[in-house]
Amino acid sequence: MDQKKYFEKNRITKLFGIDYPIIQAGMIWCSGWELASTVSNSGGLGLIGSGSMYPDILKDHIKKCQRATEKPFGVNVPLLYPQIEDHMKVIIDEGVKVVFTSAGNPATWTEKLRSNGIKVCHVVSSVKFGLKSQDCGVDAIVGEGFEAGGHNGREETTTMCLIPDLAEQVDIPLIAAGGIGSGRSMLAAFALGADGVQVGSRFAATKESSGHNNFKEEIVKAKEGATKLTLKEITPVRMIKNQFFEQVMEAYKKGADKEELTRLLGRGRAKKGMFEGNLEEGELEIGQVSSRINDVPSAQQVVENLIREFFKVKDSI
Amino acid sequence: MDQKKYFEKNRITKLFGIDYPIIQAGMIWCSGWELASTVSNSGGLGLIGSGSMYPDILKDHIKKCQRATEKPFGVNVPLLYPQIEDHMKVIIDEGVKVVFTSAGNPATWTEKLRSNGIKVCHVVSSVKFGLKSQDCGVDAIVGEGFEAGGHNGREETTTMCLIPDLAEQVDIPLIAAGGIGSGRSMLAAFALGADGVQVGSRFAATKESSGHNNFKEEIVKAKEGATKLTLKEITPVRMIKNQFFEQVMEAYKKGADKEELTRLLGRGRAKKGMFEGNLEEGELEIGQVSSRINDVPSAQQVVENLIREFFKVKDSI
Repeated sequence: MDQKKYFEKNRITKLFGIDYPIIQAGMIWCSGWELASTVSNSGGLGLIGSGSMYPDILKDHIKKCQRATEKPFGVNVPLLYPQIEDHMKVIIDEGVKVVFTSAGNPATWTEKLRSNGIKVCHVVSSVKFGLKSQDCGVDAIVGEGFEAGGHNGREETTTMCLIPDLAEQVDIPLIAAGGIGSGRSMLAAFALGADGVQVGSRFAATKESSGHNNFKEEIVKAKEGATKLTLKEITPVRMIKNQFFEQVMEAYKKGADKEELTRLLGRGRAKKGMFEGNLEEGELEIGQVSSRINDVPSAQQVVENLIREFFKVKDSI
Repeated sequence: MDQKKYFEKNRITKLFGIDYPIIQAGMIWCSGWELASTVSNSGGLGLIGSGSMYPDILKDHIKKCQRATEKPFGVNVPLLYPQIEDHMKVIIDEGVKVVFTSAGNPATWTEKLRSNGIKVCHVVSSVKFGLKSQDCGVDAIVGEGFEAGGHNGREETTTMCLIPDLAEQVDIPLIAAGGIGSGRSMLAAFALGADGVQVGSRFAATKESSGHNNFKEEIVKAKEGATKLTLKEITPVRMIKNQFFEQVMEAYKKGADKEELTRLLGRGRAKKGMFEGNLEEGELEIGQVSSRINDVPSAQQVVENLIREFFKVKDSI
């Protein structure tokens, strides 16, 4: 197939042994074994999002993913996860081959993982941490722009500005994230110097996503300006402007400090919104590109559409 | 020349009668006749930034620009400018052929300008205002993302998310702005669906820019995270985090309201910084892409570099 051939020499497809340089972001509450295995079976790289799983649940998802696909898949691990030691033990014991780490110091786990034959990729939002990750020996980095959903950098550097800067200063393979939900933006990321793309929001609203249907419908409904990056005092996060978001804005107006914001956020907000479908009280983490998402297709269709549009636009410019 | 031929059927080159679909943004304090005429003579479209000029100064710049180039050029007019009637009279009387309007309602002036044979282009930061501009009969729109310097949209939509949305929903020619300072990002804008690009920051740091040398050197020094969009209560503006910026942040911490912020901003802040070179007390408006600007070349070189890199990257992906 011509399209697969085009990506044969790509640094990301070669690194992971996949057909297309499309990574499905390991999102909390949305990306279990079903989404990850479907993406991997479609030629991309599926990631299980371990950030919302207890270690035994993660183990179960890895086993199911292994049964559902013979293709490579990975696990995303937020390094600030409280039971990180248990997570890493499960990942190594179960023979996972790819780990994407985020939200933490790449120095802590990279060597251990790599010495177990695991490919390691770290998510960064600045050149500074891109260079640091490279020094730590990671195999690739994800450069994530301000428009991305979920947790995000404090400096607000957008994908358009971050990716060319990373491409110029970092030598290892580079995956672009933030604002990428179509073949157009995938091609734009390549123009900016990326070797591959990580796609989150577009996969959050697929049939195989384990997010609640209410959440998926809310993504479809989201129009421009529907999301905002906030809570920088705790951990910056981009979310839909729902009732909970308005409570956060109210708290800011009253001059709330970090402690008060942490209390307001409480526990289980993201689960409540994204997994239980409580659109008022829950935290609904999603990217700006949700404004361009208007359906809930299968994840395989998403991969196919990305590739089809990538080549269509490429041939037209 | 092959490169010119490639752009012959482009909607922006055809609309303005230029060689390359590169618009030099009409920036306050930086883009007088010298910059505008150089860009136009280099095959792009130069714009005189009238926002920092009295009507008689604008008239003088238009006359000098006409003497310096036989190529098309235009004037950028912020529609909130207090002496807007006088500005428009000068523009019409002097026979200017292209006007870019921004920061205001496109319904007010579009018809009058067009009935005088002037091509009108309006700058927007959302699809909503893109559609409104189209309804008002403008010839083209500029979609400007969150990463752009100077005044900016409140909804923080980045170029990566804004441009595909505009390209899909608006029929008239589309110019992308925000984060574009290289051939790479110009190509990315085309992948996203734009017909042309508007480049600001990169031209602010050129020999022909009328910005103060201190300001140009500050742009060269700017690294990632050096700018921030702020003052949303007045008019959102992206600026370098200098001493004045820190004063604004202090004011926010103390809960300053719109009036206090307006008082702090005072009059002539931008002139002080960008034109008089007072890097501490002045307001230094510039885009995120300043992190990628490392020299002060001629404007002609900027145009040539944009085109060269555009084709180089295009051929490589």
